[in-house]
Amino acid sequence: MIETDIIIIGAGPVGLFTVFEAGLLKLKCHLIDSLPQPGGQLTEIYPKKPIYDIPGYPTVDAGELVDNLMEQIAPFKPEFTLGESAVSIDEVEDNKFVVTTNKGTKHKAPIVMVAGGLGVFEPRKPPVENLEKYEDKGVEYIIKDPEFYRGKSVVVAGGGDSALDWSIYLIENKIAKELSLVHRRNSFRGHLDSVQKVMDLADAGKINLITEAEVIGIDGDDALKSVTIKHNKQGEFKKEADHFVPLFGLKPTLGPIADWGLEIEKNAIVVDTVDYSTNRPGIYAIGDVNTYTGKLKLILCGFHEGTIAVQSAFARIHPDKKNVLKYTTVNGVNGF
Amino acid sequence: MIETDIIIIGAGPVGLFTVFEAGLLKLKCHLIDSLPQPGGQLTEIYPKKPIYDIPGYPTVDAGELVDNLMEQIAPFKPEFTLGESAVSIDEVEDNKFVVTTNKGTKHKAPIVMVAGGLGVFEPRKPPVENLEKYEDKGVEYIIKDPEFYRGKSVVVAGGGDSALDWSIYLIENKIAKELSLVHRRNSFRGHLDSVQKVMDLADAGKINLITEAEVIGIDGDDALKSVTIKHNKQGEFKKEADHFVPLFGLKPTLGPIADWGLEIEKNAIVVDTVDYSTNRPGIYAIGDVNTYTGKLKLILCGFHEGTIAVQSAFARIHPDKKNVLKYTTVNGVNGF
Repeated sequence: MIETDIIIIGAGPVGLFTVFEAGLLKLKCHLIDSLPQPGGQLTEIYPKKPIYDIPGYPTVDAGELVDNLMEQIAPFKPEFTLGESAVSIDEVEDNKFVVTTNKGTKHKAPIVMVAGGLGVFEPRKPPVENLEKYEDKGVEYIIKDPEFYRGKSVVVAGGGDSALDWSIYLIENKIAKELSLVHRRNSFRGHLDSVQKVMDLADAGKINLITEAEVIGIDGDDALKSVTIKHNKQGEFKKEADHFVPLFGLKPTLGPIADWGLEIEKNAIVVDTVDYSTNRPGIYAIGDVNTYTGKLKLILCGFHEGTIAVQSAFARIHPDKKNVLKYTTVNGVNGF
Repeated sequence: MIETDIIIIGAGPVGLFTVFEAGLLKLKCHLIDSLPQPGGQLTEIYPKKPIYDIPGYPTVDAGELVDNLMEQIAPFKPEFTLGESAVSIDEVEDNKFVVTTNKGTKHKAPIVMVAGGLGVFEPRKPPVENLEKYEDKGVEYIIKDPEFYRGKSVVVAGGGDSALDWSIYLIENKIAKELSLVHRRNSFRGHLDSVQKVMDLADAGKINLITEAEVIGIDGDDALKSVTIKHNKQGEFKKEADHFVPLFGLKPTLGPIADWGLEIEKNAIVVDTVDYSTNRPGIYAIGDVNTYTGKLKLILCGFHEGTIAVQSAFARIHPDKKNVLKYTTVNGVNGF
C-alpha cells in the first residue's frame, strides 16, 4: 500500500503544478496516470505544439512546459504510478481513501484530487450493426502495428489525417494487398499534401478511393469477411475485406471517473468554487475534469484551482493548524 | 478623451496578462498606472528578486516576468497612461465609464477592470504630534536625493535595512554633518553586514546610535529645530536636528479606490467569483485588490481571475454574440 498526503489522479500540467503548491504546505503527493509518462495530453498528443496562453510565456512548446513543471516540482519529490488507470476510490478508516488502479496497485491518503483532464480518449465508432462483435476479429480503431495488415485486404474509413496517412503508409510500403479508403464527403480535412498523395495513388490505381460513401454494414463468421458500402449515387454494394479500420478520431470520455459517486454534469465533475471540492468531502476536482458556472477549460485556470484546493486540503488534514500564506519571493522554496 | 474597450487600472502582472486574454476576444485595453513603468511592484520594488511560484517557471526574476508578459501582450497593442493615478470612475451615456487621473487625463470605455494590487504604497508614520505640520519642513519619509542632507544634522528612525543603509550612506559619503539613528529595540531587522557596519561606525563615533529609544516629539518654528527622544532607561531628552527621517517602511493603502462606490472588505474590493465583477455592473476587480472567500493573494490566481473576467466583459460588450473558446494551440494568436 502506497501512503501519501494527497493522491492526484492525472499527471497532466494541472496535477503536476498542484504538487508544488501542496509542497509549499509540506504536503506530499503521489500521482497516478494511465499514460506511461507525466504531462497528459501535452506530452502524449502535442509535445511539439506551441502554447501561447501560459501567462509569462509568449510561446512555449507543450513538452517544454511539462519539463519545466517537472523541474519546478522536483524539490517536493512527487511519486508516480504511471501506465495504470485509477479505477476506484474507497473510503476506509480514519477518513482516508484508497485508490486502486486497473493493475491492482493501491494508494492511501486523506485527500484525493481528480485532475483527470478530459478523461480517457476512446475511438469514435461509426453506427454500424455488429461492429463490436468483430472487434479484434477484423475491426480495429487504431493501427498499432502496420505489419499486422501485411498481405491483407483493408477498408479504411475516415476523412482526417489519420485515415489519409495510414492509407498512404500501408500502400507505399507495399504492406496491404488491397486498400479501399471510404469517406462520406468529397473533400478531406487532412493536410493538403496528404490529400494530394492519396489522389495520386488513387489515380495510379493503388488506392481504391470511394468518396461520398459510408460503410453501413459488416459481415463474416469467426472473422470479418466483407463490408457493405452505401454510395450516395451508386447505392449499396458489398466489398470483401479482411479488415475494417474506422479512423474517426478519438473522443474523450470520463471512463471510471463517472463511477466514483461524484456529481457529474456536462461530462465533468461539479465542484464548489470556494475550494474546488466535490460532493464527496476530501475529494477535489481540478482542471479540465471539473465544471462550474463560467468554467473555462484552460491550463492557467487549473493552476489556480489546484492552488486553492490544496489550501482546503491542508485545513482538512490539519484542522488545528493555521496556515499563513508565505511568499516564495520572501521565503524561497524549501523542498522535502 | 482616450477611448478603448477595457480600461485596466493597474499595470502589474495581472493587469498586463488580462490584455492578452482580452485580445483573444478582440477587445482592446488601455492601462493606467501611477508608476512610471509597467510591472507594478515587480518592477518598482523587487525587479531582481526571484519568484518561484509562477506555474512553469522553476524560478523567474520579477523583472524578467514583466518583460515576458510585455512580449506576450505586444500583438494586442495595449496603450498606457503611466505616472498618473486613476482618481475617479464616472458613469456616462451608453453604459460607459470615464476614468479620470490626477493629471486630468480622461479615458472612456464600457468596461473597467481594477487591477490595483495592494493599492498605493504610503510610508508608515510614527505617532508623533505635529509630525504632518513639519512634512517638507524637516520631516521626510523617503530619502529621494541624499545631497539634500549635505551639512545637516539628521535624525533617522527605524530598525530595517532602509534605516541602516541610509545612515551608513549619509555618513560614509560625508554628506550629513551629524547623524543619529534611533531604534526602539536593541536588535535590528536588517542584513547582518549592514548591522555590523552601523555598529562599527557607532564605535568610531561617527554615528550616534540610540537604541531602546523612540522619537516622541518634534519642535521648531518655520522649520524643524529639534526632536525629543525618550530612552527606556535614560528618560526624555531633546536633540537639535535639521531633519527627522522616520524610515518605518511602506504600507499599502487603497487610496482613491476606496471612493469609487465599490464594496470594500478587509481593505480589498468584494467580487463575485463567477466573473470577478464588483457591485457596480461593468466594473471588475482582479488580482490582489479583490477579496472573496478563500482568496489567495498570488499572481497566478490573478491570471485566472482576469481571464474569467474578460469573458464576462465580452458578454457585456457584445450581448448578441456567442463567444466560443478557441485554443491558441490550435488557432495561434491573431494580434490587432
